[in-house]
Amino acid sequence: MNFSIKNVLISTDDGYSTTDVQVVDGKIAAIAPHLDVVGTAVNGEHKLLLPGFVNAHTHSSEKWQRGIIPPLPLELWLAHLYDFAPLDTEKVYLSALGTAVETLLSGGTSVVDHLVLIPGEELETITAAVRAYREIGIRAFIAPLIQDESLTAGIPSGENERNHEPYFRSTAETLALVEEAVRQFHRPDEGVSILVAPTGIQLCSDALFTGCIELSDRYNLCRHSHLLETKAQEKLAQEKYGCSAVEHLKRLGYLGDRTSLAHCVWLNEFDIEILAETQSTVVHNPLSNLRLGSGIAPILKYRQAQVNVTFGCDGASSNDSQDLLEAIKIGSILHNTTERDYQYWITPRQATKMAALGGAKGLNMADKIGSLTVGKQADLILYDLTSLSLLPRTDPIGLLVLGRPTNAVDSAWVNGKQIVANHQVTTINVDELRQELFQRSQWNTQRQSPTVVEIEAHYRTVMGL
Amino acid sequence: MNFSIKNVLISTDDGYSTTDVQVVDGKIAAIAPHLDVVGTAVNGEHKLLLPGFVNAHTHSSEKWQRGIIPPLPLELWLAHLYDFAPLDTEKVYLSALGTAVETLLSGGTSVVDHLVLIPGEELETITAAVRAYREIGIRAFIAPLIQDESLTAGIPSGENERNHEPYFRSTAETLALVEEAVRQFHRPDEGVSILVAPTGIQLCSDALFTGCIELSDRYNLCRHSHLLETKAQEKLAQEKYGCSAVEHLKRLGYLGDRTSLAHCVWLNEFDIEILAETQSTVVHNPLSNLRLGSGIAPILKYRQAQVNVTFGCDGASSNDSQDLLEAIKIGSILHNTTERDYQYWITPRQATKMAALGGAKGLNMADKIGSLTVGKQADLILYDLTSLSLLPRTDPIGLLVLGRPTNAVDSAWVNGKQIVANHQVTTINVDELRQELFQRSQWNTQRQSPTVVEIEAHYRTVMGL
Repeated sequence: MNFSIKNVLISTDDGYSTTDVQVVDGKIAAIAPHLDVVGTAVNGEHKLLLPGFVNAHTHSSEKWQRGIIPPLPLELWLAHLYDFAPLDTEKVYLSALGTAVETLLSGGTSVVDHLVLIPGEELETITAAVRAYREIGIRAFIAPLIQDESLTAGIPSGENERNHEPYFRSTAETLALVEEAVRQFHRPDEGVSILVAPTGIQLCSDALFTGCIELSDRYNLCRHSHLLETKAQEKLAQEKYGCSAVEHLKRLGYLGDRTSLAHCVWLNEFDIEILAETQSTVVHNPLSNLRLGSGIAPILKYRQAQVNVTFGCDGASSNDSQDLLEAIKIGSILHNTTERDYQYWITPRQATKMAALGGAKGLNMADKIGSLTVGKQADLILYDLTSLSLLPRTDPIGLLVLGRPTNAVDSAWVNGKQIVANHQVTTINVDELRQELFQRSQWNTQRQSPTVVEIEAHYRTVMGL
Repeated sequence: MNFSIKNVLISTDDGYSTTDVQVVDGKIAAIAPHLDVVGTAVNGEHKLLLPGFVNAHTHSSEKWQRGIIPPLPLELWLAHLYDFAPLDTEKVYLSALGTAVETLLSGGTSVVDHLVLIPGEELETITAAVRAYREIGIRAFIAPLIQDESLTAGIPSGENERNHEPYFRSTAETLALVEEAVRQFHRPDEGVSILVAPTGIQLCSDALFTGCIELSDRYNLCRHSHLLETKAQEKLAQEKYGCSAVEHLKRLGYLGDRTSLAHCVWLNEFDIEILAETQSTVVHNPLSNLRLGSGIAPILKYRQAQVNVTFGCDGASSNDSQDLLEAIKIGSILHNTTERDYQYWITPRQATKMAALGGAKGLNMADKIGSLTVGKQADLILYDLTSLSLLPRTDPIGLLVLGRPTNAVDSAWVNGKQIVANHQVTTINVDELRQELFQRSQWNTQRQSPTVVEIEAHYRTVMGL
């Protein structure tokens, strides 16, 4: 599995240089011009080598509903999602494969899958996702999505007290489930990690968060959660805690340098200071925040406060793609409208660092992946700069981030193992996957969500619509 | 050139139906199930047929600088652009071809090219673009970009009166140039139209607008212009006219049902009423408005006021792609953050109508193209719904607009002539184009714009930065 990439363009502090890169035993062994060829020689001419990006927040099985949920805010969109969530572990396996393929072909070598669990088949769901990610070879961070309150509890009550059905599984059982998943599947050295991942303050008790902190400490697990994605959640946090969700999570001890928080749209200045001080990571999901009308996250303020920020596609029902370069592009340029002084705007180079090293930091992996550094694991993407979408030749990283690259990923390696070659995923049969996805689905346009019918009037009232 | 598409999915009022479509002599002759095959039979199974979209605002030669201009607001970005604009008509020809290829492969069958003219070779520039569009066969609306004031006049003066160098070409000569272009190239029936297209109030005198109105009336030409793209332009209009730019253009008589206006970011309620009343068309360029930090155009307000809205990619130095589906996606979901009531959000179906019929309306072509209607010209796109990026199967239009389709365009016809087949442009050699674009360019990362150095301090002062 040793190889040497010859004459490849890499990014330097102030431009680019053409160099060779040696990979030995899964690690970057040397970066310099004119190195001896060790192992297989890879022609790097007219290609750009970057560290693999991290798709730092997604929900793979949402792929089964991409394109079909109408334009709705999160709370009503969720009702659709749960009314029609797939209940078949084979589907979970296939959508995890599909998510991995799209992530790889848009520059990602790692994926954080905040995985929706099939009730009663929770471990089987995780097994299916692990199987998919191991087969394809992407670096996987599986974050089983847990909660211990029922869906309606996630909508603010407004003036009236409302009672919610108890959640079907107890807090203790849920935590036991995560612990079992850790025992069975948490193998960071083999490229599969389990994260603790309560869905968010809107549907989780303090006991669930606290239990997750204990598991995280005992097994050295990273922590993940949604955070203040919508205005409704900001309202709900005030109802539940009488303070902001960030203050509450800080008090519970959930925040820290291996905690990554998806969305972070509705934070105030004080919340931002807490994120900086706890060294928590923000995962920016610009496309789903737009699609669900959640808002524009204050990403430039995070950056000014030295908060680590990286990018995620979010699940394919709220984006509805898994193209990481698209998330990076929109997640960069979107914020130019929020700050008049262009000196603070995110440059393409900064964006690629956020997507690579920023993602690694949020997963406590900054010493192992996220940059082209001798000694780090070889999680690499080789871009073909002769793709029509990257021509004429100008600034390669500018073209990659600000353009719309298609068929631009020539090769990908994870831990030194090649899993994309000549623009094709080599570890699975993608054409077969395509056929499976086709055969297990049908054109569907007249779908109605019974839960939306049930909760919409209350939602409109409490949100003042 | 007659053909029949068999068993193809088309969109109906409340869903989809599977049908046949006959095209005879360039026009849609019949749409119904089980039609006899006339001419060539095209297999429409697992494919979606839509009217071609309009890339309603771009500048093709900007492609030579895509990916390289740093994050800057329009006024400084323009200085970069003009300092390094290509001065070679062969380059203009090649970038027009490239723009057409990317537009076709993302659902567009028409392009409005607000074409930057090489000084002293203005007609040759237009000739080069016409040659490219005729060769490839896309429906082309060439809008020679004209102005009669020099670049610095486009920045507000602030408190100090400033003098600007006179523009190198007189107003009369400029108008004569456009008239000559009309004589030589305006052949709507052959798919090439010339538009009058002063760049905008920021760099054009009233005499230039008035001259364009006369030409437009005399030759039945559509009218195009940038309008209030930036806050600086709003300020400038007040300095120049003491009223809004829209009021001024209305007084001049430039607005009307064959006038399309790119950007329209900084309009007030009263301006919006004027656009509605004059039946002008707004061309929404969401990606360049974000990239340049121009702002978020109030598109939902336009729609509520019954203003016709369609989409453009804008030039490839300010986007930096020519993927029309990307512009449609972002141009739809972006506005969900500007309006809390989701009932006003743009649905995927509405977005495709805006992109097709909305584009046709703005070009005074609504009776000829923009919908699947018997008697209209066959400007058609056939999407392959078995592309991995459009699977699993759900709502085809939802997948197309909200996803990130890649390699999804199977076929394209303009005026009944097939110009994309089996995912490839058939009328030109795209691989040769790729090689030309490669060979005539070089990796370039250390570029400095002398004009930016010259004008930046004044820009920052007058904009309060």
